[in-house]
Amino acid sequence: MVSLLTPKSFFDVMHTIETTWESVNAWRPAFSPTRKGPDVRQFVTPPIASVTFGPGSLDSLPDRIREAGGTRPLLVMSGSLARGGIGERVRTITAGLVVGTVTDVPQHVPRSAVLDAARTARALGVDSVVSIGGGTSIDCAKGIALCLAAGVDDGAGLDAHRAHRAADGTVNLPHDIRSAVPHVAVPTTLSGAELTDIAGITDDATRAKHIYRFRALAPRAVVLDAEVAAHTPPWLWAASGVRALDHAVESMLATGRMAFVDALATQAIRMLAQHLPASVEDPHDLDARAACLEAAWLAIYGITNTGAGLSHAIGHQLATRFDLLHGVSSAIMLPRAMEFNAAHTRTALARVAAALGQPDDGAESVAPALVADLIARLPVPSTISAAGGSREPFAAMAAEIAGDISLAGNPRPVTETDIVALLESAW
Amino acid sequence: MVSLLTPKSFFDVMHTIETTWESVNAWRPAFSPTRKGPDVRQFVTPPIASVTFGPGSLDSLPDRIREAGGTRPLLVMSGSLARGGIGERVRTITAGLVVGTVTDVPQHVPRSAVLDAARTARALGVDSVVSIGGGTSIDCAKGIALCLAAGVDDGAGLDAHRAHRAADGTVNLPHDIRSAVPHVAVPTTLSGAELTDIAGITDDATRAKHIYRFRALAPRAVVLDAEVAAHTPPWLWAASGVRALDHAVESMLATGRMAFVDALATQAIRMLAQHLPASVEDPHDLDARAACLEAAWLAIYGITNTGAGLSHAIGHQLATRFDLLHGVSSAIMLPRAMEFNAAHTRTALARVAAALGQPDDGAESVAPALVADLIARLPVPSTISAAGGSREPFAAMAAEIAGDISLAGNPRPVTETDIVALLESAW
Repeated sequence: MVSLLTPKSFFDVMHTIETTWESVNAWRPAFSPTRKGPDVRQFVTPPIASVTFGPGSLDSLPDRIREAGGTRPLLVMSGSLARGGIGERVRTITAGLVVGTVTDVPQHVPRSAVLDAARTARALGVDSVVSIGGGTSIDCAKGIALCLAAGVDDGAGLDAHRAHRAADGTVNLPHDIRSAVPHVAVPTTLSGAELTDIAGITDDATRAKHIYRFRALAPRAVVLDAEVAAHTPPWLWAASGVRALDHAVESMLATGRMAFVDALATQAIRMLAQHLPASVEDPHDLDARAACLEAAWLAIYGITNTGAGLSHAIGHQLATRFDLLHGVSSAIMLPRAMEFNAAHTRTALARVAAALGQPDDGAESVAPALVADLIARLPVPSTISAAGGSREPFAAMAAEIAGDISLAGNPRPVTETDIVALLESAW
Repeated sequence: MVSLLTPKSFFDVMHTIETTWESVNAWRPAFSPTRKGPDVRQFVTPPIASVTFGPGSLDSLPDRIREAGGTRPLLVMSGSLARGGIGERVRTITAGLVVGTVTDVPQHVPRSAVLDAARTARALGVDSVVSIGGGTSIDCAKGIALCLAAGVDDGAGLDAHRAHRAADGTVNLPHDIRSAVPHVAVPTTLSGAELTDIAGITDDATRAKHIYRFRALAPRAVVLDAEVAAHTPPWLWAASGVRALDHAVESMLATGRMAFVDALATQAIRMLAQHLPASVEDPHDLDARAACLEAAWLAIYGITNTGAGLSHAIGHQLATRFDLLHGVSSAIMLPRAMEFNAAHTRTALARVAAALGQPDDGAESVAPALVADLIARLPVPSTISAAGGSREPFAAMAAEIAGDISLAGNPRPVTETDIVALLESAW
């Protein structure tokens, strides 16, 4: 059994504000569900060329790099992995290929670290990037690719490429960079950063996290190896697994839901329910960790085509205000958001309940309680107070949440009053 | 209720040998399931950038053409559609965009028709192709794209680009053409040609059908509009629906099965079971036809990554020898192949049975019988004799089938004796 970390040590380590592609979903219209008529929908294929998976798939990394056209890759790797057996294996299999390595990128991916790494990359003449680690390594590699593609060498150059909403609500979309050096990603969590085209990079001066989003920034190839992911600590693995669950559930409930995405999300939920608790309890249960990696891939594969919903919208604010992992915000809000939307999503909730092993027969859906039960088996706080938040900003947060783009996909209209009530219920 | 056509009128119209991408699956290694180790698998994303679906989605055709970079497309359209209301709608929405139209491409897609159309395309300076119709229109458009990409102007030029196995069994893989003009496809059957990168073109002199396969030949965008597909005759629609069912089932049973593909295939089976019979009985039941178009997309989406099996392997020979639609070969062989493989695929068959609405509890799987029952509700022959075949060539066919590439994915070893027994049982 995993020992529950105390809240203090837990939050000392996990105070990264994760980047979420959902937060800028629909900012770039080509990536959003398009509707040409009331019944007309579109599925846009995610920009990942291949996903290689299964314990031992790390060995295919050199092939994946070469297939993507990389002959002189820069490796961005988490320091703890780099200093252990995985680092040794990576050095062995990529000897003669990798021309430089960046490790110990600080949490929040500071601009200075990205710009430094990009200068190194230029000096080494790299033609590709490889990331092995969590969101920090993956986003840093995306940032390097952006700098190389756009000739960025300073903060002003980055500013010119970030997606943001101005104070008046208008959205600033930079010119598309069209192409970037290929990126091969080997993720060690379940939050799906390797399957998105978004990077979050923090302004060193203001500590504000900025969003950069270009289709060319999505990794070209993804390698899901449970032997690598076995080194991810249970608390981080568990929280990222709850995020994957939120991706799957909200894409099934969203107004933009479609059969293609439903199918993948249903399977993701089934696999997470079956394997996530075991993969947390025993990180070396490779079958369980491998199944969770596959599930996280299925969970996020289609969500740009459906949109998300209330749990994502509230989660963005919870994570930003209280410096939480998005998986923690999902643990707090997903079951409550499902309950709030229940009357508008009976059919979809029945599918969620069935995926969790209990068909929905009665007038009330059991799906929200089943999701809450699954989360309760994991070492992830599921109330705002347990996660270290405060009640004071609820009203201000509700105003922000009411303007969050993820609400566009929510199946039930939501008022600021509703949001405050939900935050209170989650206290 | 659909009137069952007599075998004669049925086969008078449907004597096309469909092109099947499966027949050259694994010829080009990049498209096959790769295994770097016993547990390592790879999913390669299909080369289709988007699928737009829903009744009325035809109206998005000009947007899809322009998104793909087309400014002067050539339209290849089935003659019956071109002369009806759909043809009028297409002319209206593409006025000022389409620079030429090819209709009435003969069945089997003769070389001469492709070469003629390619000359027309060159003379008109087209930069893209659009197909609206069944496999004949789609394959002709792929053939035109190949001729333009490779500078092909005669039969010898085509010969240099076809994939084939020599008499000694060695496989001839032409040089990759890398890129081709974009192709937007609006299919009117459920066999999935619009989601593959294979074209079948017939040598006018020898009547042999040749296979051309390049990733660049896959349509860039697919539009699934039930208002267009409502014009497909019930017998053809039904047979292509059985082919979709075969794609889904065999990808779930294949040795290369994976959760991602399982999820989509399960959903495809569920939707076909629910909507295929109704969509055959009433072609103007747009909801049913739309659901089948979505199901066909899900059914074929992942199959290059899993491989197929015995029904596909036998089906290739049945279709070639007896000039059958592949959907007919699937109707004949799929339930029998499932039965043959049953002891090796209990878990997968249980999922198929569940998708067909009847969980598998006993020692014997009910899945083969459920598939046979579904097929029996459709106007498609399900024995070799009813389909107009003969018993004489069974032994020769068995020898060919034993060498079919699809057998590589079959979950149970198969001998020529087994195959002859299966053919006899299907007589």
